[in-house]
Amino acid sequence: MNRATTSSYSITMRLHTDPDHGVVGAVATAIAGAGGIVTAIDVAESSNTRLVVDVTCSAGDADHALELERIVGAIEGVEVYKVSDRTFLLHIGGKIEVSSKVPLKNRDDLSMAYTPGVGRVSRALAEHPEDIPRLTVKGNSVAVVTDGSAVLGLGNIGPGAALPVMEGKAALFKRFAGIDAWPICLASQDTDEIVRAVELIAPGFGGINLEDIAAPRCFEIERRLRASLDIPVFHDDQHGTAIVVLAALTNALRVVRKELSAVRIVVSGGGAAGTAIVTLLLAAGVTDVVVVDRAGALCAGDESLPPAHRELAAATNPRRVTGDLHTVLQGADVFIGVSAPGVLKAEWITEMAPDAVVFALANPDPEVDPAEAGRYAAVVASGRSDYPNQINNVLAFPGVFRGLLDARASDVTVPMLLAAAEAIALVVKDEELNPSFIIPTVFHPDVPKAVASAIARTATPRDAQAPEASEA
Amino acid sequence: MNRATTSSYSITMRLHTDPDHGVVGAVATAIAGAGGIVTAIDVAESSNTRLVVDVTCSAGDADHALELERIVGAIEGVEVYKVSDRTFLLHIGGKIEVSSKVPLKNRDDLSMAYTPGVGRVSRALAEHPEDIPRLTVKGNSVAVVTDGSAVLGLGNIGPGAALPVMEGKAALFKRFAGIDAWPICLASQDTDEIVRAVELIAPGFGGINLEDIAAPRCFEIERRLRASLDIPVFHDDQHGTAIVVLAALTNALRVVRKELSAVRIVVSGGGAAGTAIVTLLLAAGVTDVVVVDRAGALCAGDESLPPAHRELAAATNPRRVTGDLHTVLQGADVFIGVSAPGVLKAEWITEMAPDAVVFALANPDPEVDPAEAGRYAAVVASGRSDYPNQINNVLAFPGVFRGLLDARASDVTVPMLLAAAEAIALVVKDEELNPSFIIPTVFHPDVPKAVASAIARTATPRDAQAPEASEA
Repeated sequence: MNRATTSSYSITMRLHTDPDHGVVGAVATAIAGAGGIVTAIDVAESSNTRLVVDVTCSAGDADHALELERIVGAIEGVEVYKVSDRTFLLHIGGKIEVSSKVPLKNRDDLSMAYTPGVGRVSRALAEHPEDIPRLTVKGNSVAVVTDGSAVLGLGNIGPGAALPVMEGKAALFKRFAGIDAWPICLASQDTDEIVRAVELIAPGFGGINLEDIAAPRCFEIERRLRASLDIPVFHDDQHGTAIVVLAALTNALRVVRKELSAVRIVVSGGGAAGTAIVTLLLAAGVTDVVVVDRAGALCAGDESLPPAHRELAAATNPRRVTGDLHTVLQGADVFIGVSAPGVLKAEWITEMAPDAVVFALANPDPEVDPAEAGRYAAVVASGRSDYPNQINNVLAFPGVFRGLLDARASDVTVPMLLAAAEAIALVVKDEELNPSFIIPTVFHPDVPKAVASAIARTATPRDAQAPEASEA
Repeated sequence: MNRATTSSYSITMRLHTDPDHGVVGAVATAIAGAGGIVTAIDVAESSNTRLVVDVTCSAGDADHALELERIVGAIEGVEVYKVSDRTFLLHIGGKIEVSSKVPLKNRDDLSMAYTPGVGRVSRALAEHPEDIPRLTVKGNSVAVVTDGSAVLGLGNIGPGAALPVMEGKAALFKRFAGIDAWPICLASQDTDEIVRAVELIAPGFGGINLEDIAAPRCFEIERRLRASLDIPVFHDDQHGTAIVVLAALTNALRVVRKELSAVRIVVSGGGAAGTAIVTLLLAAGVTDVVVVDRAGALCAGDESLPPAHRELAAATNPRRVTGDLHTVLQGADVFIGVSAPGVLKAEWITEMAPDAVVFALANPDPEVDPAEAGRYAAVVASGRSDYPNQINNVLAFPGVFRGLLDARASDVTVPMLLAAAEAIALVVKDEELNPSFIIPTVFHPDVPKAVASAIARTATPRDAQAPEASEA
């Protein structure tokens, strides 16, 4: 049996075996025979009564890893004490750390960074609060705030279990934009409590990135925080996604030579992401967009809709179409899915307008298999990294906050989001543009800078004073 | 004119001058003539109409720096546009940063640290929350929480101006104990709001360090948080100070060959630090301690006392002495001041018992000049780094939290504080002990480890499972 193995399913099994090194050989043979690749064998403990052995090997996927574990456990004289995979090992001790940017080697260092020197800085800031962002980490820091209620595709797993995702986000903030982000995982899913907690911690941060907070709670939280805080508040699941979708759509329409203002768009999913995407599309000049949720197309005047959907219905669906996704999709130019796996049947795409664009963004399993969709659509994008055209928020949020912080912006505005989307789209040059490359990869070095300068250019700076060259 | 210059009063003046480089020479000459030392001259901008020049020089102190600025500004053709000193320059951009501990170079890295790999870790933590400290930064992180109400000796300067102090503290946490601490500066001075905010952010942290919160609010905040949270809560201004004072007193009494249980102690100041010191002294076996506040000795039965002082009075002053500091000091063995500058007249020490011990800890100006006190007392300590025997919390808090995190302790207990004080005291070996060396310096490499292991040894671990060798 041979399978493709990837490092994200590399596992380490801790085995307790009989005190016979021959057993270890049998383990290696069994793993190889089952299609695994042994990369390391470390004997952690050796005594007269037993061996403790860590065997690291690559498996094809999670099921294959379980199969290897079963096969090894079945060997005479072997007990599988514990299995860790490489992803879990990477997470031990957490993924982020706090470092000092200043030396603390001697008394002189200490007297500047801490007492008594720091007292002069604090006194100056009490008199001139406008200098706080310049003389503290506030000028470069973002709180990544969640209540753990809508984490990835996992749902309401709570703040503690959400921490690895928020740490990952913080690590990406540094990697892609040099921003110091810290995870704030809140022990409450009450809107008032979340709003107040963020207001209370705001003095130490230059921006608030809301993350993985369930709809419709997230709308009210963002709206209230934007009203009360003097630092920018950005819900990445909404606006990050909307920016990248608009960027990708801009380029997809460049490929099929259609105009944004002329296309008919169907958005599947009226949650946080869907709402933000629709709002940004309308701001970008889209005239015909229909949102389809579980109960069908949202249509103005439908009194059975919840408040958030009523607003969405009022702003969309100018032709007042009704019916399910299949019906609404007839003749549409663009499908954007931020809903659930498998809701779009690939053959329905043949009933869309010619040169259909299909974005199937449900994670981890999209609305339609991208490869199947590619048989009927002119351009296909998804949230997956194993197909072309990955719609990934990492393209947006680092640069967005870099720009906001650089401009000392106090708000996030729609013109900024539009400018960010345009900046991402323009990173793909005319000669690079094709149906399989409508959006740059997350590692494209130009993206964060392009987004940051687009945001900063569009921002109204709170503090118009240019930074001093000598203090850069 | 010649003065001693120190680096903490190094300043950088940005000058706008006539476009004549001769003017720059005149500046350098003027500074040297006034006792300053020019260390760098950088021309930032040169045009037909003006020069922009950054002149860096050392000054003797803040007054001398002002004088240099005045002298330079008086030179024909020179305008002093802006003056920054070295301590301020060090603070530009903040003193701490967040770094990624994991590589994020390629797609494979991203898929483990962020989606999709992180999803498996989060799902596992939702099922096994006891693993959260091991697989996230929670296991090594501390929130440094303030409301900015009692910052250093500056008073109520608010959360934003307090940030440099909290950042300094976070930097020290890393430097001395490898802990990832993040400042949380709260925009409220309401007890209920502070308590709730800390409860809400607690899921992401392994410990809470309360800092520079005014008394008596700080007592209630700490008490309520200890009751509601499952992570340790430590108010450094109270318990950190108490630990170091007890350590220093233990060694001071070794010097003068007196027993802790037999000495008479006077504590000047019934605030947060004074209360914590007294509580720890009583737990350590002290039998005769009198607290003196603004209105004189606290004495049980005095109905005019505020509630916090009534409790303190009930636990202290067994001989029911009354009167002011001078009166109460008669025959006392030990003076511990955590009150205000100059309240102790040096000559009063002659009325104390022979071999008096004087700790004058008010910051930045002590209750009595340490040099003057040294003429009458056998042992003198202060909070100042320019005299022997500095009582500095840096000796305690890093090791305390290192031990708490290592043991996964859920509470801070009195036996832990006693063990920490003993550990610090024992770092000073018998052969090193003398009146000018009762307490190790903050840079003594043994201190954090000794404190951490004392704390961890004394802790009742929340999670008795030993860490796996393969996962260290």
